[in-house]
Amino acid sequence: MDAYPRPLKDLISQLRRLPGVGEKTATRLALYILAEPSDLAVNLAQALQKVKQQIRLCPICFNLTDRERCPLCDDGYRDSGLVCVVDDPSDVIALESAHEYRGVYHVLHGLISPLNGIGPDDIKLPQLLERLKGGAIREIIIATNPSVDGEATAHYLNRVIAESCMSVRVSRIASGVPMGGELKYMDQVTLASALRYRRSIK
Amino acid sequence: MDAYPRPLKDLISQLRRLPGVGEKTATRLALYILAEPSDLAVNLAQALQKVKQQIRLCPICFNLTDRERCPLCDDGYRDSGLVCVVDDPSDVIALESAHEYRGVYHVLHGLISPLNGIGPDDIKLPQLLERLKGGAIREIIIATNPSVDGEATAHYLNRVIAESCMSVRVSRIASGVPMGGELKYMDQVTLASALRYRRSIK
Repeated sequence: MDAYPRPLKDLISQLRRLPGVGEKTATRLALYILAEPSDLAVNLAQALQKVKQQIRLCPICFNLTDRERCPLCDDGYRDSGLVCVVDDPSDVIALESAHEYRGVYHVLHGLISPLNGIGPDDIKLPQLLERLKGGAIREIIIATNPSVDGEATAHYLNRVIAESCMSVRVSRIASGVPMGGELKYMDQVTLASALRYRRSIK
Repeated sequence: MDAYPRPLKDLISQLRRLPGVGEKTATRLALYILAEPSDLAVNLAQALQKVKQQIRLCPICFNLTDRERCPLCDDGYRDSGLVCVVDDPSDVIALESAHEYRGVYHVLHGLISPLNGIGPDDIKLPQLLERLKGGAIREIIIATNPSVDGEATAHYLNRVIAESCMSVRVSRIASGVPMGGELKYMDQVTLASALRYRRSIK
């Protein structure tokens, strides 16, 4: 026999395309959606359609937005001379949650990754250089993850800016032992970084 | 600032309604769906709408189907005098995958669970008794899970049939050490069941 009726099989195969969702999870989710008497399926379908129709990238910083420009670039109280460069939109949310930063952002939508064949032109890096050419930016803070790809991207960006002789200060977020972390559980690279980039106590 | 644009927040809150999906997973899924250049969002939305529109319950066995009656009840080669009673539609799939059973099914869509306030009338049990009154059924195999609720349902069903003086044989699926299992890793209740319901070797 056919295991499940066609519409159910279609839903299972679409759910399987989500990251981390295998055959068993997809089946469980599909049966849950079907058994749910409320409007989960309809609401989820509408939310999916709307997200694709209405969400676009801000033409300045490439953050996600449903308006002409994102609320961060539109905020006149933020310092548009200070740009924080991040990998993806969730990094913007994470940094904003710290309530520490009052500049604007630039979302790269990826990191340079030679192993995966991702070069500078595959991410929003040319757009960042274009933005720098405008001359209104004093400093960029490279806030890519302290991973191999994140470091490679930071290194590349720093070199390109240095070579272009632009008068832009380039900085990198601090890397070290996280607040509340314990030294005995930290990896060697983090400890080495914490020692190398130690700061004077005033 | 608003963490994410409204349509994205809506999608995250809908995804959170799925079982086992929390805030972080929902955000990851939503951002994945958004970044995915192919037609995942559209196809998933269509699959969700179709599943709710087209899937119904078979009026005989209450299995899921997209036709008038489910293919199992419609199959003239199956023994309609033998009914296997299961908790939910995924149990039908599991049993069918064993290629052992040639009878039909009855899907209860739940189990009697006094602790959760689920009584016999909250599941498709009255419909099963109605089906038995037709007189064409020789035997029912109670294939609910060997759990507290599954056993309670089996017990209740057996008693009701005995009291109604119907000439129906009632059996229960075997419970014991699964094939390939190791005795040393089995729980006591399973081992006790395996001993109690031992069979003669012919």
